[in-house]
Amino acid sequence: MTIPFTPVVASLPAVIPFVGPETLERRSGRSFRARLGANESAFGMSPKAKAAVLAELERASWYGDPESHDLRKALARKHGVGMENVMVGEGMDALLGYTVRMIVDPGTPVVTSLGAYPTFNYHAAGFGGDLLTVPYRDDHEDPDALLEKVRETGAQLMYLSNPDNPMGTWHDAARIQALIGAVPDHCLLILDEAYIDFAPEGTSPPIDTANPNVLVMRTFSKAHGMAGMRVAYAIGHADLITGLGKVRNHFAMNRLAQAAALASLNDTDFIARVVAEVEAGRQETYDLAERLGLRALPSATNFVAIDLGSNDRATAALQGLAEMGVFIRMPGVEPLNRCIRVTIGRPGEREIFAEALTDVLQSL
Amino acid sequence: MTIPFTPVVASLPAVIPFVGPETLERRSGRSFRARLGANESAFGMSPKAKAAVLAELERASWYGDPESHDLRKALARKHGVGMENVMVGEGMDALLGYTVRMIVDPGTPVVTSLGAYPTFNYHAAGFGGDLLTVPYRDDHEDPDALLEKVRETGAQLMYLSNPDNPMGTWHDAARIQALIGAVPDHCLLILDEAYIDFAPEGTSPPIDTANPNVLVMRTFSKAHGMAGMRVAYAIGHADLITGLGKVRNHFAMNRLAQAAALASLNDTDFIARVVAEVEAGRQETYDLAERLGLRALPSATNFVAIDLGSNDRATAALQGLAEMGVFIRMPGVEPLNRCIRVTIGRPGEREIFAEALTDVLQSL
Repeated sequence: MTIPFTPVVASLPAVIPFVGPETLERRSGRSFRARLGANESAFGMSPKAKAAVLAELERASWYGDPESHDLRKALARKHGVGMENVMVGEGMDALLGYTVRMIVDPGTPVVTSLGAYPTFNYHAAGFGGDLLTVPYRDDHEDPDALLEKVRETGAQLMYLSNPDNPMGTWHDAARIQALIGAVPDHCLLILDEAYIDFAPEGTSPPIDTANPNVLVMRTFSKAHGMAGMRVAYAIGHADLITGLGKVRNHFAMNRLAQAAALASLNDTDFIARVVAEVEAGRQETYDLAERLGLRALPSATNFVAIDLGSNDRATAALQGLAEMGVFIRMPGVEPLNRCIRVTIGRPGEREIFAEALTDVLQSL
Repeated sequence: MTIPFTPVVASLPAVIPFVGPETLERRSGRSFRARLGANESAFGMSPKAKAAVLAELERASWYGDPESHDLRKALARKHGVGMENVMVGEGMDALLGYTVRMIVDPGTPVVTSLGAYPTFNYHAAGFGGDLLTVPYRDDHEDPDALLEKVRETGAQLMYLSNPDNPMGTWHDAARIQALIGAVPDHCLLILDEAYIDFAPEGTSPPIDTANPNVLVMRTFSKAHGMAGMRVAYAIGHADLITGLGKVRNHFAMNRLAQAAALASLNDTDFIARVVAEVEAGRQETYDLAERLGLRALPSATNFVAIDLGSNDRATAALQGLAEMGVFIRMPGVEPLNRCIRVTIGRPGEREIFAEALTDVLQSL
């Protein structure tokens, strides 16, 4: 018997977008001393979010509200949009998957940057999309090149993250606004703002829910320190949100996560402290790189890309760091893969990283 | 601009499989006194699972292990299968969706029972499947009719739950084993065992991971009291699990939920107590029905279907109960919809239900 897979699924490779740090630990038989590879927040969840988890724990046997009503209402207020413009989902990966599914059939052209978020590519390929890429320009995603590729191919979906992962670079709101204004009618732009909390004022363009060409995505996994809880949201035209509602899993939200996200959203002081800590850590990382004779890329995220000059050196550094118990990651494609990418840790973790990187460089 | 939805998504109605109790509460402006409509466990999570959540809370800012290694290993041991035969997922609805996606293209024939789990139908329709149904026979899903429909249509996917939701009825393992043996080579059977913990010994057939025609699904949402945590798993041939791995969201698991599920799995005493409480509650519900001159269907689940004799009476009873603050549900199609379906609550909730149903019947 042959399992009756669809042609698309039958043709997919059995790859995964990322190997988890636990897998690496099992392979090596050792625990990492510093977990700085997945851009998880080193500063944890808000104490108010933790309290909300505890308060909700006795109701963990109840399904979460499939409308995520209270969280959605708070998000709509925060962004000055209607509740019909907000979709809460079980992490941004899930929302990316639903959005791709909504637009992409086998052969549909999809445009992104070569080296940008692999899980978007995983979904695009997973639904049979024809994934087309344009290179980064000076370590930034390149809105002009993306647009040109969209026009050239008639692509129906395009992806841009601002700030960018894995380089940490960003464009200002005016540049993104210009991109939005130029997206052709036949195309939907996913604007991934996962790291926006760490970016300077003036990085995020205003949200126009009358425009059906853009879907903005944000997450509680980064500044809110809730990666393990799985909460993200999309904001856009009501027709986009209705479309997502046709394909999403309605009861997918963890009930404790809904409560935690709402509490975290209201704890703006906590988020401000996390952002300040991350800024301090970025500066420390820039300084470290300078001391070591390396160039760190200015970052608007909770991680910093450090240029090692070549892919061989970057790969060797990553390997050496892993052997010293430091988990980081690096970009997967040229020319980005001359860099390593380190998440901003707490002071103790930053010290471990600084010492390990110093040692590793001496052995390169 | 028209959003470039796929033809399948464009054609889907904006319906949802279930309206959540919170939505009903918001509509009425009143909280339910007894929440007995979603087959959530009234007996909560294991204290060990709660302790595991607390112990993991400081790591909620870390993504869950994408392999769910420890939980999968424990599940593999419990079922006497290899880890390569187990897929952990973010709730059974998600696993059903991934499985449908793996098999169903637009027009693919899919067979289920008329009135069986609506979320399976939601996914089958959501991927453009041609949903074909056969009626229940004597309030049981009908393996022979399902098989015949599969043979007649060349269906590539079929669904059966044992025990059944929404009627609570079940077949013994021998009957299910006979079905499994007769599934044609061109078809995959999803055997949904969400309620198996409440069923008599001898309800679940042995799992044969050499057979690529069957995928068994189980959940932590029912006996384990973890509906709000989102943990389920599928067991089957390694090629099926590999196929699911090509389409699933690898980082979808809530980290606290992984820890809680593992702890709950090891707390077999707790599950035995829950099952005993549910048995007592079922008997009490049978007795209540008899006192009220109604027939309750024997159930192997944590709910009981009570026959009101007609859809009009059942609908009126459900409505009357809702007005008295009691949330229950009822089957959606004839002839099942002559029944109401009540989840087994704690003694206090059962008392509220008994009094309310008694009152409601007097007004019918």
